[in-house]
Amino acid sequence: MNEPLNLVLFSGTDDKLQAAAVLTAGAAAMGKPVNVFLQYWALDAFRRDRIALDHGLAPEAGVEGRHHVDHLRHAGQASWAETLRQAKDLGEVDIQACSLSMDLLDIEQADLDPLVDGVEGVTAFYMNAGEGHMVFI
Amino acid sequence: MNEPLNLVLFSGTDDKLQAAAVLTAGAAAMGKPVNVFLQYWALDAFRRDRIALDHGLAPEAGVEGRHHVDHLRHAGQASWAETLRQAKDLGEVDIQACSLSMDLLDIEQADLDPLVDGVEGVTAFYMNAGEGHMVFI
Amino acid sequence: MNEPLNLVLFSGTDDKLQAAAVLTAGAAAMGKPVNVFLQYWALDAFRRDRIALDHGLAPEAGVEGRHHVDHLRHAGQASWAETLRQAKDLGEVDIQACSLSMDLLDIEQADLDPLVDGVEGVTAFYMNAGEGHMVFI
Repeated sequence: MNEPLNLVLFSGTDDKLQAAAVLTAGAAAMGKPVNVFLQYWALDAFRRDRIALDHGLAPEAGVEGRHHVDHLRHAGQASWAETLRQAKDLGEVDIQACSLSMDLLDIEQADLDPLVDGVEGVTAFYMNAGEGHMVFI
Repeated sequence: MNEPLNLVLFSGTDDKLQAAAVLTAGAAAMGKPVNVFLQYWALDAFRRDRIALDHGLAPEAGVEGRHHVDHLRHAGQASWAETLRQAKDLGEVDIQACSLSMDLLDIEQADLDPLVDGVEGVTAFYMNAGEGHMVFI
Repeated sequence: MNEPLNLVLFSGTDDKLQAAAVLTAGAAAMGKPVNVFLQYWALDAFRRDRIALDHGLAPEAGVEGRHHVDHLRHAGQASWAETLRQAKDLGEVDIQACSLSMDLLDIEQADLDPLVDGVEGVTAFYMNAGEGHMVFI
């Protein structure tokens, strides 16, 4: 139970990021440390000037899925970014950008939302993962 | 080996659900308990009135992938729902709907196929996961 | 740390395969054995006559993501297949095709790139996974 939850976030759609945020918040609330490693399109979604924008949904959501997500948002559901901010207040959540993906997107840490704590390589991510679960989203 | 396999199913396409069903059936056949947690579009696919429908494939399947999947189905391959039913007969498979996703889709347990054993939150899912593998599909 | 990293590769787009290759190479460089299990569209991408082709990107990449990926490739970034070849030179990386997916795609091992070491069922994959991380990509 003291082993961290390790999330590799690859996908940049709002539904997968929300699922990741809920897994993070749940673990943080239970006192479990969470290591988040941002790659590719998930990293792109954490850009300071894009984090509050609409990032679309998985293709299978369709028109009906879109409607459900919009309805819940209008009813006051916290966005994934807000949920992650709350999770950081609640527990030990460390969010790192993958250095290779930073190169890919040609961005620097100043371009990222303050939710992101730093930049690291995959080796550092493995070192911190310990024996906890590793999940790719 | 006695630790459970823990699957978070997010995606609602037939190919990913089939991959999940095969991982479930393999674990069940080996005497490994399996906890399945249904979120978002995977949960939607377990609706009583939709479970037998076509739920599409991942975008990269393309026309050729579609053809292969249809061919195997016509040749008698069990659907993912049938494979999960067999896995439940074979071993200890517990399928729970994520309570947040139930709210999102505005459905109740009576709307779901009897394959689904109940509704729970993410904390309960973590409590049952133990030290087994956790996989997000 | 001696437990293997176990990757189930399902997705067949170049971005996810690159992410998987980087996770594999990082683990191999740290002396961690890696078991890769190829299913569905990931397996299709390992066909001898397709492995060097363009396999597209996740839908959310968009035009801008496509541009970034092409730019890095033209700047000399190794492809995912090359990265996996290097990882095999570096450490203990075993790549197996899922027998059910071989049937689905109607192919034989001779159709696959020599990167693929063999064909096995899901039970064999679980037997080799030990207590290491299991990741679905």
